[in-house]
Amino acid sequence: MNKGEKLNVDAVSRMLGVPEVRILGLLKRRVLQQVAMVPTLYRFDKGISTIEGGTAIFCDGEIEIVRGFPKIQRAMLLYPTIKQRFTCKTVVVEEKMNGYNVRVARIRDKVLALTRGGLVCPYTTEKVRELLDQRFFQDNPDLVVCGEIVGPDNPYVPKSIYPIESVDFYVYDVRFKTSGTPLPVYAKRKLMEEYGIKCVRLFGEYSVEDAHLEVTKIIRGLGEVGREGVVIKDPEMIIPPIKYTSSQSNCSDLRYAFEFYNDYGRDFFFSRVVREGYQSVEWDEDEEALKKRCCQLGESLLRPMIKTIKKKKRGQRITEDVQIRVKGLETVNQFAEHLRRMGVDAIFEPPEQINKEYLVKIKKINQSTNDRTEAILSGQLWS
Amino acid sequence: MNKGEKLNVDAVSRMLGVPEVRILGLLKRRVLQQVAMVPTLYRFDKGISTIEGGTAIFCDGEIEIVRGFPKIQRAMLLYPTIKQRFTCKTVVVEEKMNGYNVRVARIRDKVLALTRGGLVCPYTTEKVRELLDQRFFQDNPDLVVCGEIVGPDNPYVPKSIYPIESVDFYVYDVRFKTSGTPLPVYAKRKLMEEYGIKCVRLFGEYSVEDAHLEVTKIIRGLGEVGREGVVIKDPEMIIPPIKYTSSQSNCSDLRYAFEFYNDYGRDFFFSRVVREGYQSVEWDEDEEALKKRCCQLGESLLRPMIKTIKKKKRGQRITEDVQIRVKGLETVNQFAEHLRRMGVDAIFEPPEQINKEYLVKIKKINQSTNDRTEAILSGQLWS
Repeated sequence: MNKGEKLNVDAVSRMLGVPEVRILGLLKRRVLQQVAMVPTLYRFDKGISTIEGGTAIFCDGEIEIVRGFPKIQRAMLLYPTIKQRFTCKTVVVEEKMNGYNVRVARIRDKVLALTRGGLVCPYTTEKVRELLDQRFFQDNPDLVVCGEIVGPDNPYVPKSIYPIESVDFYVYDVRFKTSGTPLPVYAKRKLMEEYGIKCVRLFGEYSVEDAHLEVTKIIRGLGEVGREGVVIKDPEMIIPPIKYTSSQSNCSDLRYAFEFYNDYGRDFFFSRVVREGYQSVEWDEDEEALKKRCCQLGESLLRPMIKTIKKKKRGQRITEDVQIRVKGLETVNQFAEHLRRMGVDAIFEPPEQINKEYLVKIKKINQSTNDRTEAILSGQLWS
Repeated sequence: MNKGEKLNVDAVSRMLGVPEVRILGLLKRRVLQQVAMVPTLYRFDKGISTIEGGTAIFCDGEIEIVRGFPKIQRAMLLYPTIKQRFTCKTVVVEEKMNGYNVRVARIRDKVLALTRGGLVCPYTTEKVRELLDQRFFQDNPDLVVCGEIVGPDNPYVPKSIYPIESVDFYVYDVRFKTSGTPLPVYAKRKLMEEYGIKCVRLFGEYSVEDAHLEVTKIIRGLGEVGREGVVIKDPEMIIPPIKYTSSQSNCSDLRYAFEFYNDYGRDFFFSRVVREGYQSVEWDEDEEALKKRCCQLGESLLRPMIKTIKKKKRGQRITEDVQIRVKGLETVNQFAEHLRRMGVDAIFEPPEQINKEYLVKIKKINQSTNDRTEAILSGQLWS
C-alpha cells in the first residue's frame, strides 16, 4: 500500500474540534484509519461523541474533511413524536427513497462519491459524474451533496420499485463539508434546481399539530406502491430530522434479509417486527387489517428463508445477485477492488456489451448463510 | 451476609479436575461466586470448558458438588441429524415438558431443589419435598434427580397445557452428583418406579434409521395438543441427547415473550423463526400449510406486542402474572428473597387461603418493556 501522507494531527484537531491526544488515540485503535488510495484518505470507521462514523479526511497537502452523514432517528409512532420533537411551527415532509446513500464532493479537482462508511466507491463516482452537473461542484467547493442512488443497476440495494432503467440520483441534503451543517430545505431545493439536479420528492409543509395525519395518508399511499417512507424535517434544518416508513417497505426489507438469514444482524429483524406492532396500534387496526399484517409479516420471514434452504438442498450456492452498468471496464476492476476492501466476497460474470455500455452481473456470496444452511442440511445441530 | 465457610480450593480442584489456579481466577472474576445461604454455597454463574454453568458447591465441612445440567443441543432437521449424531443402533424418545428444570439432591440431611443457575429455590424445595418420596434421597445420597416442574402454580414458566391442578414434577434424568454422569434411560426409569416417582413420558425406542419418521408423527401429535416436544436419547446415555420441538410450542414461546418484547434477548426471537423455516422444509409443506404457518408465526409476534402497547396506553403496568401455592407463609418470604437475589422485581399480593394452603399471586415487573413502551408512547424515538 502506498503509505501516502501522514495525517496532520494538529490541523485535523483544529478543524474537527477534537483534542490532538484523542485523534492519536483513535488512530492507534484504528477507529480513524487510512484507506489505500490516492489522494491520501483517512476515515472514521465508527462515530465518536462529536464526529459521525464515515467522516472522511483527505490530506495531500491541503486537508479537506467531509463529515459523515448523521444517523436519522426513527419515529415508532407519528403522534405524539412529531409534536414532541419539532418545537418549530411547521415540518416539511420529503420522500425517503430506497437505495444507498452517498455523499458527493469535489476533492482537489475531482468529484468523488463517498459511501456511508467513508470509502470512495469507484462505480458510484462514475455515476455521479454522469448524472450531476459538474459545474455545481466547481461553483461550490465547500458543499457536499447527500443523495440516494436508486434503481436496478445499483450494486448495494437494487430495487425495481422506481421507474428507473439503470440508476438515478436524488438529493435529500446539501451540507457544508467540514462542519456537516445542512442548508435549510428550500435553500437546498432552489440551489439544486439551479443546476438541474433532482431532489427527492417534496410532499409538503404541514403544521406540527396536523403533520401526523398528513404523514399517515402519505405513508399509506407510498406503501401501496411499495415505496419506502418519508423524512420529516424542520424547514430550517436546525432540529434534526426523523424518518418513518411503510409496512410494505419494512416487510420487503425482511424478505430480502431472510434470504440471507445468517448474514444479517439479529437487531435488523427485531426492530422491524416492533415497528409493525406500533404502526398497527397507531392506525387502530380492526381484526381484518391486523390479521393481514400478521400474515404478511410471517410470510416475509419464512418464505425467503425456505427458498434459501431449498436452494441449498438442490446444491446451489446462496448469492445476492446484483449488477452494475459501466462505460469502461476499468471501473469494473476498481469496483471489484472496492468490494474486496469492504470484505465482500463476490463473483463477477463476464461483461455483456449493451449499446455503448457494459452490464456486469455480480454474485455476492453470503458465506455465513451458505455455511450454516449447509451444516444443518448435513445433520449438524443449531447450538 | 453470613460470610460462611471459605471455599476449600484444593479439595474442589481435585473433585472437579480443574487446576487450583484456575479456581482462584474464577473466584476473582466472580464466575464462581458465593450465594448468601446456609449451608455455604458457591455456584458457577456460567460454564467453563469442562464445568457446566449452574454447578453448585456446598461446603460446610464436607464438600458436596452438584454438577450443572448440560445444555441439550437442538436438531433443526430430524433427518439426517438423528442418523448423523447417534452412532448407536436405537434411540429412545421421551417427552420434553414445558416448565422449568430443577435438580434435586440431598445435601447434608436436607433435600434441596436447585434452579438451572445453581441457586436453591425455597418454593421448589417445598414442592419437591412434598412430591417426591424422600426415601430415595436417603438411599441414594450420591444421585441427583433432574426433572421438570410443570403446572399453573409454577412461578417461572406457568402453563396450563397439562392436566395438573397446581404443580407436578416429572423426572427426565438421574445423574451422579459430582461427575454429572447420567444413568442409562431404562435404569433411571426403573429406579424411579421403585420409589413411585413419575418420569416424563416414554414414547418408545426406535431404530436410528427410522427414528426421524417416528419423531415426526410424535411431534405432530404433541403439537396438536399444544405440548412442547421431545428429547431423543442414546439408551445408554453415552452420546448426549438432542431436543426437537413442535411449531405450536415455538409460537407459544414467542407469544409469551413478545408481551415483554424488550426484556427478552434478540436471539430468542431469531432462533425460533429459523426453526419454523427448517420444519416447513423438512415437512415439505404445500402452499396451504405454509400459509397457515406464516400467519401463525406473524400472529405470535404481533398480537402479544400490540396487547402490551395498548395496555400501557391505558396506563396499566406490564407484568408477568404468576402464582405460587404454599403450606406456610415462611416460604413466601423466602421466595420473595430468592427473586430479589435473581434480580427480579416483583409485587406479591396478599395470600388467599384455599383449603389448607395459601395462594399468592405475584406480578413480575418487566421494567425494560415498561420503560421502552412508555417512552415511545410519549413520543420518544427508537434510536
